[in-house]
Amino acid sequence: MLEEYARIYRRDLTESVIPFWLDHSLDKEFGGYFTCLDREGGIYDTKKYLWLQGREVWTFSRLYNEFERKQEYLDAAALGVDFIRRYGRDPKGRVYFSLTREGKPFAFQRKPYGAVFCMMGFLEYYRATGQEEYLGEAVGLFRDIAKWIEDPALTDRPAFAGEVKTSTLADPMVLAVMALELHAIDRQNDYTGFLKDALKKIKLHYDVGRKILLENVPLEGEDISDWPEGRLFLPGHSIEVAWILLRILEVLPDESCKQMAMDIIAGSLEYGWDEKHGGLFYYMDIDNRPVLQLEQKMKLWWAHAESIYALILAYDLSRDDRWLTWLDRVHSYTYDKFVDEKYGEWFGYCDRQGELTNTCKGGNYKGCFHVPRALLFSLQRIERMNEDSNRS
Amino acid sequence: MLEEYARIYRRDLTESVIPFWLDHSLDKEFGGYFTCLDREGGIYDTKKYLWLQGREVWTFSRLYNEFERKQEYLDAAALGVDFIRRYGRDPKGRVYFSLTREGKPFAFQRKPYGAVFCMMGFLEYYRATGQEEYLGEAVGLFRDIAKWIEDPALTDRPAFAGEVKTSTLADPMVLAVMALELHAIDRQNDYTGFLKDALKKIKLHYDVGRKILLENVPLEGEDISDWPEGRLFLPGHSIEVAWILLRILEVLPDESCKQMAMDIIAGSLEYGWDEKHGGLFYYMDIDNRPVLQLEQKMKLWWAHAESIYALILAYDLSRDDRWLTWLDRVHSYTYDKFVDEKYGEWFGYCDRQGELTNTCKGGNYKGCFHVPRALLFSLQRIERMNEDSNRS
Repeated sequence: MLEEYARIYRRDLTESVIPFWLDHSLDKEFGGYFTCLDREGGIYDTKKYLWLQGREVWTFSRLYNEFERKQEYLDAAALGVDFIRRYGRDPKGRVYFSLTREGKPFAFQRKPYGAVFCMMGFLEYYRATGQEEYLGEAVGLFRDIAKWIEDPALTDRPAFAGEVKTSTLADPMVLAVMALELHAIDRQNDYTGFLKDALKKIKLHYDVGRKILLENVPLEGEDISDWPEGRLFLPGHSIEVAWILLRILEVLPDESCKQMAMDIIAGSLEYGWDEKHGGLFYYMDIDNRPVLQLEQKMKLWWAHAESIYALILAYDLSRDDRWLTWLDRVHSYTYDKFVDEKYGEWFGYCDRQGELTNTCKGGNYKGCFHVPRALLFSLQRIERMNEDSNRS
Repeated sequence: MLEEYARIYRRDLTESVIPFWLDHSLDKEFGGYFTCLDREGGIYDTKKYLWLQGREVWTFSRLYNEFERKQEYLDAAALGVDFIRRYGRDPKGRVYFSLTREGKPFAFQRKPYGAVFCMMGFLEYYRATGQEEYLGEAVGLFRDIAKWIEDPALTDRPAFAGEVKTSTLADPMVLAVMALELHAIDRQNDYTGFLKDALKKIKLHYDVGRKILLENVPLEGEDISDWPEGRLFLPGHSIEVAWILLRILEVLPDESCKQMAMDIIAGSLEYGWDEKHGGLFYYMDIDNRPVLQLEQKMKLWWAHAESIYALILAYDLSRDDRWLTWLDRVHSYTYDKFVDEKYGEWFGYCDRQGELTNTCKGGNYKGCFHVPRALLFSLQRIERMNEDSNRS
């Protein structure tokens, strides 16, 4: 069964996903990538979104480093890395949210996440080329991001007296992901302190009763359960962080934490799965109170892509068949709803009932990242399992 | 037929909508209003959202001024106006987006719209009480808002080199609405210049071929049709602005502009109505390209409330039965999908198929405003038509 999945993921990656982005997203005239692509790959917005510029650099560099050493992949990565270096940052070194096609600044978001993916792109590109300057860019940006997360006023988000000091799940998550990659690539510095810290922060988000990770938790003991922020749960996000936890634990083994991560995968799927129409809800309230986000009941591609890889990882680490039952369920829903056999790549957005609300393949938040990453990581893991079992 | 509608709207307003907000939204302990209310009126977020604080002050003051001179309405308005005056503004005089229940600042939005509705609340409350200080607050805030719209850097939104100078429909719309009310109430100053200017700006948004108003239009002749912003159309917004135009034209008569406004109502309904499932789409792209907003195909209460009033106004000004055909259609959809007979007020959010995605009655953007305003304006207009015809 797993071999069949690996076969599907490999074919999907090589015949559908990679060609879609290579054929439609590269802006060979101005550099960087178009990501607002319709079903057939037509460009419906020429702007360049920095989250997605960084993510596509990462993806093509990673494919070059670990999948197939094709010059085409490295060239595609170079197109983005140069564009980011040339135009991506404002005079304070912060990363813009979007640029015009030519690279002129268009918008700034008061968040550090655009920078996170540029950093990941630089680092993986360094790994592909060995050029030290990209490692320097990556490490410098990582240090900036850590500061920006610590003090949001540096990204123009001042603290207000009525705010409660909270941890937002995305923050330890991105720090963990960056530190994990740095730990593997940058042997000159020690990142285990960051990993330990991220681990500790993520644990604060654990809701023991429900076995899920909450989006926002107070840091100084306040009660924020009167606010929707305090009750917010994103199944896909919780599952993504759980697999990142499992990857951290391969560096810093801890059995009880591993059990927690496995419990989070199961808990989030059980809590977040729509028993009526299938698929994972986008936003939920743990007390079943109203949710402010209008798109709450929609089904998004990335939550399902993350779940597929998390389930394969959980199975590999436990060899418990219950993960395969879930994998079958998530895989079937995903390939039924999101995969576009005709024009390649996946669709992104379904309503609760599973009808597409939009046939785009990319936008200002969907680019060349979640799908190829999940497919690559999943097939690599399955193939490694097979190799291990052939060896033993 | 119209008399029957007036009867329904009066009953809905007095027996369902007003009691819902009076019973559930007043925070008699800390002042201001809870607006995050679930189906039954239970509070799911104790924070105070400034857009909605101002809007509720306006609504209760207007009801007191024009519907029924009940002390209860004036008291309800006072609860909000004091809260806004005490806590609503930052040290630079700008209006916060949200506060904690007690009034501590929680978030700031880089937009002037929260201030717009506080201004409207102050003005209508002045009209209710005759206390000059509220007129002063209103006029001062109006002047600030005009400056903030002119120069977004004053609300922390610096201009970027890649931006194109555009007019956003909401800007002339709110300036027109405020100037219209000031024109009627503040006899010491002349607001016709603002009205003329808003009229001119709104005309720039007119798409002659489609007979709709576009959300964003370039001011210096650039072509932004490669960007989703340049192709964006919100049927409900276009219709709301059309009735505001018709109200401006009662002050500044102009037959060709009146025809344009009537055409916009018809054009927006024809373009924006979902022939398959009924209701008005939230966001559309005029070239039928993908739309970035995930909630694009949802049906929102306010677009339908605005349409009901616009259609009654269009009928009054033309006595053309085609408006009644549309009114029947919009009214039926609205009362079928949004009105909650059981617990009062309207629901706010349906998916494309017309299923509720959330049963809340209020949130951070839905409060005591669109529904009571549309019901009040609609029944007033119908009753005035009847009086006129009885007199003639």
